[in-house]
Amino acid sequence: MIKVGIIGSTGYAGAELVRILTGHKEAEIVWYGSRSYVDKQYADVYRNMFQIVDAACMDDNMDELARQVDVIFTATPQGLCASLVNEDILSKTKIIDLSADFRIKDVSVYEKWYGIEHKSPEFINEAVYGLCEINRDKVKGARLVANPGCYTTCSILTAYPLAKEGIIDMSTLIVDAKSGTSGAGRGAKLPNLFCEVNENMKPYGVATHRHTPEIEEQLGYASGEKVVINFTPHLVPMNRGILATEYASLKKDVTYEDVKAIYDKYYADEKFVRVLKENELPETKWVEGSNYVDINFKIDPRTNRIIMMGAIDNLVKGAAGQAVQNMNLMFGMDEAEGLNLVPMFP
Amino acid sequence: MIKVGIIGSTGYAGAELVRILTGHKEAEIVWYGSRSYVDKQYADVYRNMFQIVDAACMDDNMDELARQVDVIFTATPQGLCASLVNEDILSKTKIIDLSADFRIKDVSVYEKWYGIEHKSPEFINEAVYGLCEINRDKVKGARLVANPGCYTTCSILTAYPLAKEGIIDMSTLIVDAKSGTSGAGRGAKLPNLFCEVNENMKPYGVATHRHTPEIEEQLGYASGEKVVINFTPHLVPMNRGILATEYASLKKDVTYEDVKAIYDKYYADEKFVRVLKENELPETKWVEGSNYVDINFKIDPRTNRIIMMGAIDNLVKGAAGQAVQNMNLMFGMDEAEGLNLVPMFP
Amino acid sequence: MIKVGIIGSTGYAGAELVRILTGHKEAEIVWYGSRSYVDKQYADVYRNMFQIVDAACMDDNMDELARQVDVIFTATPQGLCASLVNEDILSKTKIIDLSADFRIKDVSVYEKWYGIEHKSPEFINEAVYGLCEINRDKVKGARLVANPGCYTTCSILTAYPLAKEGIIDMSTLIVDAKSGTSGAGRGAKLPNLFCEVNENMKPYGVATHRHTPEIEEQLGYASGEKVVINFTPHLVPMNRGILATEYASLKKDVTYEDVKAIYDKYYADEKFVRVLKENELPETKWVEGSNYVDINFKIDPRTNRIIMMGAIDNLVKGAAGQAVQNMNLMFGMDEAEGLNLVPMFP
Amino acid sequence: MIKVGIIGSTGYAGAELVRILTGHKEAEIVWYGSRSYVDKQYADVYRNMFQIVDAACMDDNMDELARQVDVIFTATPQGLCASLVNEDILSKTKIIDLSADFRIKDVSVYEKWYGIEHKSPEFINEAVYGLCEINRDKVKGARLVANPGCYTTCSILTAYPLAKEGIIDMSTLIVDAKSGTSGAGRGAKLPNLFCEVNENMKPYGVATHRHTPEIEEQLGYASGEKVVINFTPHLVPMNRGILATEYASLKKDVTYEDVKAIYDKYYADEKFVRVLKENELPETKWVEGSNYVDINFKIDPRTNRIIMMGAIDNLVKGAAGQAVQNMNLMFGMDEAEGLNLVPMFP
Repeated sequence: MIKVGIIGSTGYAGAELVRILTGHKEAEIVWYGSRSYVDKQYADVYRNMFQIVDAACMDDNMDELARQVDVIFTATPQGLCASLVNEDILSKTKIIDLSADFRIKDVSVYEKWYGIEHKSPEFINEAVYGLCEINRDKVKGARLVANPGCYTTCSILTAYPLAKEGIIDMSTLIVDAKSGTSGAGRGAKLPNLFCEVNENMKPYGVATHRHTPEIEEQLGYASGEKVVINFTPHLVPMNRGILATEYASLKKDVTYEDVKAIYDKYYADEKFVRVLKENELPETKWVEGSNYVDINFKIDPRTNRIIMMGAIDNLVKGAAGQAVQNMNLMFGMDEAEGLNLVPMFP
Repeated sequence: MIKVGIIGSTGYAGAELVRILTGHKEAEIVWYGSRSYVDKQYADVYRNMFQIVDAACMDDNMDELARQVDVIFTATPQGLCASLVNEDILSKTKIIDLSADFRIKDVSVYEKWYGIEHKSPEFINEAVYGLCEINRDKVKGARLVANPGCYTTCSILTAYPLAKEGIIDMSTLIVDAKSGTSGAGRGAKLPNLFCEVNENMKPYGVATHRHTPEIEEQLGYASGEKVVINFTPHLVPMNRGILATEYASLKKDVTYEDVKAIYDKYYADEKFVRVLKENELPETKWVEGSNYVDINFKIDPRTNRIIMMGAIDNLVKGAAGQAVQNMNLMFGMDEAEGLNLVPMFP
Repeated sequence: MIKVGIIGSTGYAGAELVRILTGHKEAEIVWYGSRSYVDKQYADVYRNMFQIVDAACMDDNMDELARQVDVIFTATPQGLCASLVNEDILSKTKIIDLSADFRIKDVSVYEKWYGIEHKSPEFINEAVYGLCEINRDKVKGARLVANPGCYTTCSILTAYPLAKEGIIDMSTLIVDAKSGTSGAGRGAKLPNLFCEVNENMKPYGVATHRHTPEIEEQLGYASGEKVVINFTPHLVPMNRGILATEYASLKKDVTYEDVKAIYDKYYADEKFVRVLKENELPETKWVEGSNYVDINFKIDPRTNRIIMMGAIDNLVKGAAGQAVQNMNLMFGMDEAEGLNLVPMFP
Repeated sequence: MIKVGIIGSTGYAGAELVRILTGHKEAEIVWYGSRSYVDKQYADVYRNMFQIVDAACMDDNMDELARQVDVIFTATPQGLCASLVNEDILSKTKIIDLSADFRIKDVSVYEKWYGIEHKSPEFINEAVYGLCEINRDKVKGARLVANPGCYTTCSILTAYPLAKEGIIDMSTLIVDAKSGTSGAGRGAKLPNLFCEVNENMKPYGVATHRHTPEIEEQLGYASGEKVVINFTPHLVPMNRGILATEYASLKKDVTYEDVKAIYDKYYADEKFVRVLKENELPETKWVEGSNYVDINFKIDPRTNRIIMMGAIDNLVKGAAGQAVQNMNLMFGMDEAEGLNLVPMFP
């Protein structure tokens, strides 16, 4: 039984970690960190956990935490993990950081897009980008894993095989993504109020969203070339779910079967990636509450483009689920332990 | 490993049975019945089940089914189970009927409220009303269990201890209930369209809803007197969840502590009933996806009434979850097997 | 053309006043008060008003305002209007207060339920309770109108004719009300976040909600006796709409036709009250965006109770629409001017 | 007072025509056509119209209708208007067809994308494409107007000035569009059920949606070249609203001011087109219930692309509102008569 500490356990991603780990057979949460709710019962903050979790919230003391636990999840705003981590801590425990602090290898890119100084750039190289399906082996040996962003997980996995195999022109790649509102977090802000979000739909962060360089970097590794894309996120009135619709010009003349074979090459053995049947398109509801990514594509011969589509639950495969998947890999456990979550419908 | 057959597996309650049983360690679905989708892959009807369920839908042949399975769930419209069941079938298999056919002991009451003739009244007496927390021992020995309705489960469990202990005047009981839309089923009907339900709220079946006599009968047993109530259901724009707000005059002068002690007497050891802390009121979201009933109450000294409130997920504790709980009891398994479902939030 | 000033024009009720008055032929807004957004363009706060309203927000200076306008609407939190109003102001302008400050005649009741000291009790007697259908003549001559609450407007109008005619036992009256979320205002609070409200349903303020004494007072006048009720509000995941379901025992043996005749006696000539056809029940969607109250009832001979149901748009008939209706009466204009709003569906 | 007949008045677009025309000073509906509800009171089908519309539904007899009315709106499925129209009818009355029958000039393109034979191709040339802002003069003299589609109205108006001025490379144009569910109509179909749409998001008609050739044709006229695009619609859980996010490569080096000047050149005097302030992005809620199109754009120097965004209410500017705008033009009335609809928020 490994011991788990969560810093930021009362945000939505943190709460999803709690939900998932509650059903994990080989892990036990011993530290429910939450700066806002120190000493308050966790189940008073998240009442779904009444009679399930019997523990009070703790502060952010990562040094103390490192002494007590085998792995720390940081589900906190950008900058916090980088400001707390040090060699002493990493010598005692593993860290899975759900923030962006260690996702981007070029610190100047990080600082430019995030607008903050990186407080521990010395660990960036060591950190492994925790997209399990792509970096599985590296994750296994990591002390510090940078858990991918929600949009990025969906966007990268949807395009990865085609980028890797070089059949799409990366300079034409456009990612139009739509997200439910839990991705905006639990902060009490006007734009997140029910009446502002409900019956509304909007783009935001156009040409400036922070997940852009993360997608570019990873698809750059895949394709072997520098990638610059348009990424446009949208807010949609629902709790959970991300849908990425991606457009790229084809470099070769390919059939449905050709492309399907490429997806199968990378994903046929992946438990959490479901390449759908021909003409069935991803819908977020079919993956809700689960760690699945549903993917499909359509070739448009009129424009010589391919439209790739992917759907995830932003809090599971896009955050907590993938973090647990990383933990399972890091500790040599069954990769799917705790993640056999059947999507809930309706 | 017991073998399970489901008649009506492609309705919402049936699909929830599939979701839950997929995670059950000692049961295996071998028959996915669905008159509408015979021979179609189940995962083509419910795409959340893609790569999880690999089976085609079957017809309603209960005789054949009885030869193959240990227990049959009928998640079908009123009248079907009663028209199919017979002694031969019951001698071979157990039946858990999610319809209303065997819930009401007085066949004339059933026929009046449901407007159909009962096709097998000879089994009504034998059938056990499967409200596990109240009829646990009877369920254990049953061949035929009448799984309670969604509104009724919530309404009865919320008032039961006070009815049983005689502290409320049953002639004053009013149940005002609100439900999400999955309770209306998956039929393609105009009133269930998104644009008709969304941003809308309405009462329906006022003074005539079929769950009324079921609540009356069960609370009659509890209180030892004939009970006649007002029950008013409402449709609310959400997928899952029932909230029952119940009003009754107090027969005695009681304190919060008195009433809390009564609830605890009946529910303190019940895993799936959570009597909340003082001043915390039930909300449907905190039980979503789980088998919990959340209950609390408020005494109003100004009117000498008590307001009792209960919340469930209508598809779980209000249908499939309770049906599995009944199955677990009938087969001597851990009552909570397959039902350790943590509520999903948000 | 009368000149209008709004204090609190950037809350939801204030914004609805702006929407409605924009289409009013004889009134013109000259003061968009908003403490939070002073000097900011109104259309930057409510972008629906882009190219419609060209004015900046002003502060709460009621003295200055009184010199400039014919009528002031105060769409502000409890206590503000009472703290600002004085004889000098009322000698220059009329006030329609959308807060609760002048709704309740007994100042001790107000202070007990609202938990604040009343700053200008000397105007309570003068203030007219602006439920137009009931107090029309008094409103016409008023300087100070207390605009009714949203729940109360719906609850009172639904029961009023039966209370007035003495056919229901007022001691048995129970009001179970459900509201959309705009009633909670535009404050950035955790419980109002999209992810907390969406797919959720909850009671709140059980036995303690502030609209209770307001309903009791008005129905007390109608029935000629002291009225004490249970009033239970619920929050429902939609923007607009209140549905009140009310229960009372019948004092006489009445038929559908008897009761219909009573409703018609009071409402047949009322433009904004629609008593529905037999068996058609109120739904909030059918009144959305309009000033209508839709009402119907059902007699239950089994329990000798009548169930009365009413639906309004909380921001229109429950706030801004009724305020404009009051203004029209106070200035001798067509009562429906600016209020010919056709409900929007879907 | 002109006399109006509506064929298909009980679909969502037809009902929106009724809502809008109810407030029109110079038009009066005398024929509420509805094949499904002949002889039924219109206000029994759309109860928002109770006590507002007092008329029964009529059949589809266009010959009779032509004798009685000045203008016929056909808000019907594809093919119906083309099958009914003839020279005799057009000699007596004007027709505004909300279906696609007369939108596309090349009949073979129509027949290929819609999969039906065109029954009156002889009127295609005469028909005017009723996008008022672009074809205003032609609409004024038309007998037969093809009212544009919902997606197309939004997609075309958003890109039109840049296509017309030749600053974008039309071969790179991609339109990613998102729609509320009322666009799917009022048919009782499984995919439109509340529980299937709510908390879900999906693409559909990828590379095959019928609005594609309509956008291509109109933007082809604007740019003076053959246009072939990718158009991807998505379904979003809300009643009303379309958001189009459009991507194209810039042919010239342009600044924000350059592009803003182009938009202003075409739209500064257009009442119903609002080009937003810099950095304010369109949101569907800000136009809900109104005839506005809100538009803005963002230049991305990293990719040399421009992202154009537009938002409309699909039932108003995307259907009924634009149809009334066309009617106003055809009859020489104020173009905005009946359309001074202030967007409703929240």
